[in-house]
Amino acid sequence: MKRFVDLAELDTVAVRDLVTLATRLEQSPRPQALAGKVLGLLFMNPSLRTLASFQAGMSRLGGNSFVITPGAGTWNLETRLGAVMNGDRAEHIREGIPVLASYSDVLGVRAFAEGVNLEDDLNEKVFQQIAQLVDKPLINMESAMNHPCQALADWKTLDELDVPSNGKFVLSWVNHPRALPLAVPAAAMTMAAQRGMEVVVARPEGFEIPAALADKARKLATASGGSFTETTDRAAAMKGAHVLYAKEWGSTRHYGDAKADGELRRQLSDWKVDESWFANARPEARFMHCLPVRRNVVVADSLLDGPRSVVLREAYNRMPAQMAVLHRLLAR
Amino acid sequence: MKRFVDLAELDTVAVRDLVTLATRLEQSPRPQALAGKVLGLLFMNPSLRTLASFQAGMSRLGGNSFVITPGAGTWNLETRLGAVMNGDRAEHIREGIPVLASYSDVLGVRAFAEGVNLEDDLNEKVFQQIAQLVDKPLINMESAMNHPCQALADWKTLDELDVPSNGKFVLSWVNHPRALPLAVPAAAMTMAAQRGMEVVVARPEGFEIPAALADKARKLATASGGSFTETTDRAAAMKGAHVLYAKEWGSTRHYGDAKADGELRRQLSDWKVDESWFANARPEARFMHCLPVRRNVVVADSLLDGPRSVVLREAYNRMPAQMAVLHRLLAR
Amino acid sequence: MKRFVDLAELDTVAVRDLVTLATRLEQSPRPQALAGKVLGLLFMNPSLRTLASFQAGMSRLGGNSFVITPGAGTWNLETRLGAVMNGDRAEHIREGIPVLASYSDVLGVRAFAEGVNLEDDLNEKVFQQIAQLVDKPLINMESAMNHPCQALADWKTLDELDVPSNGKFVLSWVNHPRALPLAVPAAAMTMAAQRGMEVVVARPEGFEIPAALADKARKLATASGGSFTETTDRAAAMKGAHVLYAKEWGSTRHYGDAKADGELRRQLSDWKVDESWFANARPEARFMHCLPVRRNVVVADSLLDGPRSVVLREAYNRMPAQMAVLHRLLAR
Repeated sequence: MKRFVDLAELDTVAVRDLVTLATRLEQSPRPQALAGKVLGLLFMNPSLRTLASFQAGMSRLGGNSFVITPGAGTWNLETRLGAVMNGDRAEHIREGIPVLASYSDVLGVRAFAEGVNLEDDLNEKVFQQIAQLVDKPLINMESAMNHPCQALADWKTLDELDVPSNGKFVLSWVNHPRALPLAVPAAAMTMAAQRGMEVVVARPEGFEIPAALADKARKLATASGGSFTETTDRAAAMKGAHVLYAKEWGSTRHYGDAKADGELRRQLSDWKVDESWFANARPEARFMHCLPVRRNVVVADSLLDGPRSVVLREAYNRMPAQMAVLHRLLAR
Repeated sequence: MKRFVDLAELDTVAVRDLVTLATRLEQSPRPQALAGKVLGLLFMNPSLRTLASFQAGMSRLGGNSFVITPGAGTWNLETRLGAVMNGDRAEHIREGIPVLASYSDVLGVRAFAEGVNLEDDLNEKVFQQIAQLVDKPLINMESAMNHPCQALADWKTLDELDVPSNGKFVLSWVNHPRALPLAVPAAAMTMAAQRGMEVVVARPEGFEIPAALADKARKLATASGGSFTETTDRAAAMKGAHVLYAKEWGSTRHYGDAKADGELRRQLSDWKVDESWFANARPEARFMHCLPVRRNVVVADSLLDGPRSVVLREAYNRMPAQMAVLHRLLAR
Repeated sequence: MKRFVDLAELDTVAVRDLVTLATRLEQSPRPQALAGKVLGLLFMNPSLRTLASFQAGMSRLGGNSFVITPGAGTWNLETRLGAVMNGDRAEHIREGIPVLASYSDVLGVRAFAEGVNLEDDLNEKVFQQIAQLVDKPLINMESAMNHPCQALADWKTLDELDVPSNGKFVLSWVNHPRALPLAVPAAAMTMAAQRGMEVVVARPEGFEIPAALADKARKLATASGGSFTETTDRAAAMKGAHVLYAKEWGSTRHYGDAKADGELRRQLSDWKVDESWFANARPEARFMHCLPVRRNVVVADSLLDGPRSVVLREAYNRMPAQMAVLHRLLAR
């Protein structure tokens, strides 16, 4: 494995191997495995879980890390090719990225969607540009349309909960004060499709999954015996579900148009998860969310604090999942 | 020892053992003792000494650490139970804290007083809420009314300076541009009481020690042969003193009322320490302060730079004191 | 070696030894050399390369580091002696610096020029004040008029590129939206002089090298068989050059006067490097810059992305150069 930027770049056997390795590293710590190795972490956007779990995981393997946060202690980075840099961005990624890579044995990069042009974000314009500048192992710590570390942690969580490989996985849109990126919904639904699950996306009109992502999920599902469908009928989607994976995202119909997006979501305050959503689900159905989550806006306290919720397990699994990735990329 | 949140939770023998361990770790470094262990550090408020001394101390024991600072690279954390999170706080401590704890072998948390309601702060409302969410060893890196790491470092400093266990310890209020929390004065006076000292608090009217804290100090003093009194008469307090521990704090009479507090302190500019305060003290009397300290507002340059001042020793002792705590919580 | 604050404090043999050690540490990693050692890093100003290369380098030697950034998680530090600290700076460097040093085995400090009074900056007023407060090994991570880590990395880069010791080194002023400090130009030209090169500074009227710096360069050049001259004639300077080292700096004639500086540089937009500058240089002449660099303001994309540019190599060499410094200061 040379880089970890999209779970779908790995075949299903390779993903299962990573999950197995993650579990093994949990049970048998290897505090010298990556001695003297350095993980560079570049956060173009805020983080809590990703920062903490990568630094903790690298330390548990005997390695170390550094953190660069443009705009907080470091100048802002320019990403536009050909820019005349007379504004507030003192350094271009064409220098910043290879320099950071040159200090690192592996580089993790977080670069959220720009949220302006859907095609650009679907094409991972910024992340691809960054990736081309890195001649070391590279980890995607969330790009415009992907979050493979979250997906791998979620796969591990599903395994631990004995959710069947062909179980029903409902990804539901939920409301939020403003438009958020599609990275996690894209990563979660393609992960579930690759795992062989019956994937159903429930979302209101205006929040359709872009065709390119739906096609990707459908292909992965076909290859592994699963399926992928999309609906506005939440109750039908939840029928017999093993898992409800809730996630906020911005209107794809009005991508980059905060006003139109806001008008649409103002009428959708009932897309807030509570126990009533589980009326027709399997009794043991689980509630998943990648965190951070806005309590009593996205999900009711009672559900989040109740037995269906496995959000803390998902978050914890970020660490062993990423330890497996680091180990695979760097050991020997 | 399962957690280190209040020095008074330990009996005096246990505190003395920690001081001894701190000295031993200074003299005989143990750079492999905590190999592979991870210290999570959550700073809800700014820090210099605490951040640096914990990271340095953990490194000297062979472990590693990560730092999370809400509002700087990480979203702000909500603390109110039942909050409808449609504002600027994207994550609740009910998720954030257990997630960070799950990546850590020990978690350190700094959460200053809210400074609004005195009872809430005396009850450590926020810190208690956080503590209940942590199922790992926990270190209080300063809460509303406590700062046990500072207290342990100060105890060690007093020992090193051969200040007698039954010596006279004067905690004096000093002025400052604005109201500061009671955490350090509370920790210092209860530490000195627990050490068996003759503790006298000197402070102007309006800055009385809250009854709950005074009672705690009195009980600790009684158990160890010391005493605890409070006075507005600075000169009388300083008579025969071994130690002047200066500290700024907000009006307890006007708690949370910045305007009334400001009016009160405007008339108190003479509560600035200089050599004249030591006229009736013991000749070798020491000046202590936890830092940071505002020169020529809280204390005159000449005193701070002179031979009475032991503030740098106090600050240095944060590191070995905390190494002892980490070692006790984690080793073997 | 007790401290690393100015390359010119070392004789040429000692510098060459450091470069050799840097190369050796690149080829034969020593991941246990500094086990249990702590590097404190204090950034009074922003950083990318310096932060990342020091943390990565220290990790590769088995040590660890902490970072303090006043104004971002830590209060701002006062530097003025005798200040009445009733403003927004809660701590004085007279406490902050020795405290951080006491937690560290070696302390790195970045403190840019104040940019108000040229004499003060030439005298390194702030950095000298800081240095006097440190009783541990100290590293200058860029002061008002120096950047020895950059200079050492550049020396190593020149060696690797087989630039002759007596080759022609042109330091040219380049334009920038605002006045920048003289630290890097001063460090680069004195480094090249110490290396024995024919040093020519090209710069417009108003941007003269201050006499004290020119004298220092001239003395170093004399001792090592090189030379130091200054000119406004860019084309003449570039004739037969082995290296063009481009750097932005503020007007020395109007030091600290942003308005007059701005008027001067508004007419100097042709001081932007492109291939035409190399018309009379040696065919294999190199383009150097310390980074960050503003593309298409300071240098054309085509040159920076072309074969003359060695800016990434310079930046990478920060890490091994600093590893050599850390090793020399700390190992056995």
